[in-house]
Amino acid sequence: MSEFRWPIRVYYEDTDAGGIVYHANYLRFMERARTEWLRALGFEQDRLLQELRVLFVVRSLEADYLKPALFNDSLEVITTVPQVRRASLLFRQEIVRNTATGESTTLLRAKVKVACLAADTLRPVAIPDAIRMEMNDVG
Amino acid sequence: MSEFRWPIRVYYEDTDAGGIVYHANYLRFMERARTEWLRALGFEQDRLLQELRVLFVVRSLEADYLKPALFNDSLEVITTVPQVRRASLLFRQEIVRNTATGESTTLLRAKVKVACLAADTLRPVAIPDAIRMEMNDVG
Amino acid sequence: MSEFRWPIRVYYEDTDAGGIVYHANYLRFMERARTEWLRALGFEQDRLLQELRVLFVVRSLEADYLKPALFNDSLEVITTVPQVRRASLLFRQEIVRNTATGESTTLLRAKVKVACLAADTLRPVAIPDAIRMEMNDVG
Amino acid sequence: MSEFRWPIRVYYEDTDAGGIVYHANYLRFMERARTEWLRALGFEQDRLLQELRVLFVVRSLEADYLKPALFNDSLEVITTVPQVRRASLLFRQEIVRNTATGESTTLLRAKVKVACLAADTLRPVAIPDAIRMEMNDVG
Repeated sequence: MSEFRWPIRVYYEDTDAGGIVYHANYLRFMERARTEWLRALGFEQDRLLQELRVLFVVRSLEADYLKPALFNDSLEVITTVPQVRRASLLFRQEIVRNTATGESTTLLRAKVKVACLAADTLRPVAIPDAIRMEMNDVG
Repeated sequence: MSEFRWPIRVYYEDTDAGGIVYHANYLRFMERARTEWLRALGFEQDRLLQELRVLFVVRSLEADYLKPALFNDSLEVITTVPQVRRASLLFRQEIVRNTATGESTTLLRAKVKVACLAADTLRPVAIPDAIRMEMNDVG
Repeated sequence: MSEFRWPIRVYYEDTDAGGIVYHANYLRFMERARTEWLRALGFEQDRLLQELRVLFVVRSLEADYLKPALFNDSLEVITTVPQVRRASLLFRQEIVRNTATGESTTLLRAKVKVACLAADTLRPVAIPDAIRMEMNDVG
Repeated sequence: MSEFRWPIRVYYEDTDAGGIVYHANYLRFMERARTEWLRALGFEQDRLLQELRVLFVVRSLEADYLKPALFNDSLEVITTVPQVRRASLLFRQEIVRNTATGESTTLLRAKVKVACLAADTLRPVAIPDAIRMEMNDVG
């Protein structure tokens, strides 16, 4: 199963007065990576919303915070998609810190279940076929 | 001209690794105060959006950052509305820190111009009469 | 075991273009509630950081997103603390929406494990005794 | 005077229920661009903080919001530095939207005054010479 890697730089906006990345902000990093994975498959979410009236939302989340990320860190989100179902997706995501000397440390491990919703009712709906086929090829 | 006061507590989410409130987050505090001012006048923005299809957006902004707010500070946003026009509003907003000993320090002073937009076109539109009348009474 | 309730209003800043609260922002709401719970016990986190050089950080997280919160919703975070250990705490938190007609709907259920860290080393350290005693009384 | 360009992608986290980028988030985009400009000059802000004990903070801000950015937009922050003083910098920043067809639209124009502070006292301090020299060469 292929993995998708997306770089993230830690800016001041991501940190808190504890000197580390605020815990909720790792979720933003993982969502950027999921968006870029979809884009890499050829799907732009603004078009999915406007043309197919679907949106993807987080249904459940498990995250282990192993080590804190710091201001100015250069991170990478590593994403795999072990499960594609009719109306939902399971993502495994890791956030790693890469140093200039080539070391890589895992900071966070998460499982994120994402559901496909009809934008107008906010109810579950099947993932459009074109997307699901593409996902199964790479997932 | 009456002033509207709204309390804000500084949480970890608002601060950054410099140990102070991240500069963009004061804008969130001021927007909360504008929302609560509208609510105090009797207007809920979710209904304005759904029923009248209007939304208020920031058109321009001037802010002087005088002193930094710190984690856990107890702040207050002081809002006045010196000008109500057909399709826009001018707000003056100050953020002050109040200490347990009764001292009050001004941390930020801002002028915020807010425009009324049609939600569907994102173009300027007259502020609904009911709202403008209410604003003129208190502004 | 007593529960701690903290009100949250949903502002524009909390929502996203899907028209619902952005999933990471519920974590901010829950952290505000944990902070206010500590404050209700008599502990201010800025003092804990400055005087005792400890900070509390999220170690792991499980969240089920049951229904989306919407712009302008009036929410409540309900917090209990089923477990207080030497250097960590387990929180159970729910976010509910309360309507004007008295209905209450659960939107999110979470378990959050929080560790006590030494601020200077970012390593686990025992929760200061005064705090742990207070927690055991109410937890 | 040379200009520095930095790309920004608009994610769900940046938008609000009005369907557009939340106004405070443009400030985050501009701060990322200032950080990357400093990095391009050879200065990493985590080292400035740790080694020289200085940090850069926003002192004042003027912003004109011309057109809204939308979810999934591909933006660019264009930064110039018309003025470098002993303990402060003036930035001019524009945010433009670039479309696939090569059009470029200006969405926001801002002037941002940034001060250099001693990290320990949060008081103004001269910009370290090495940085100021580098800035004058390119500014």
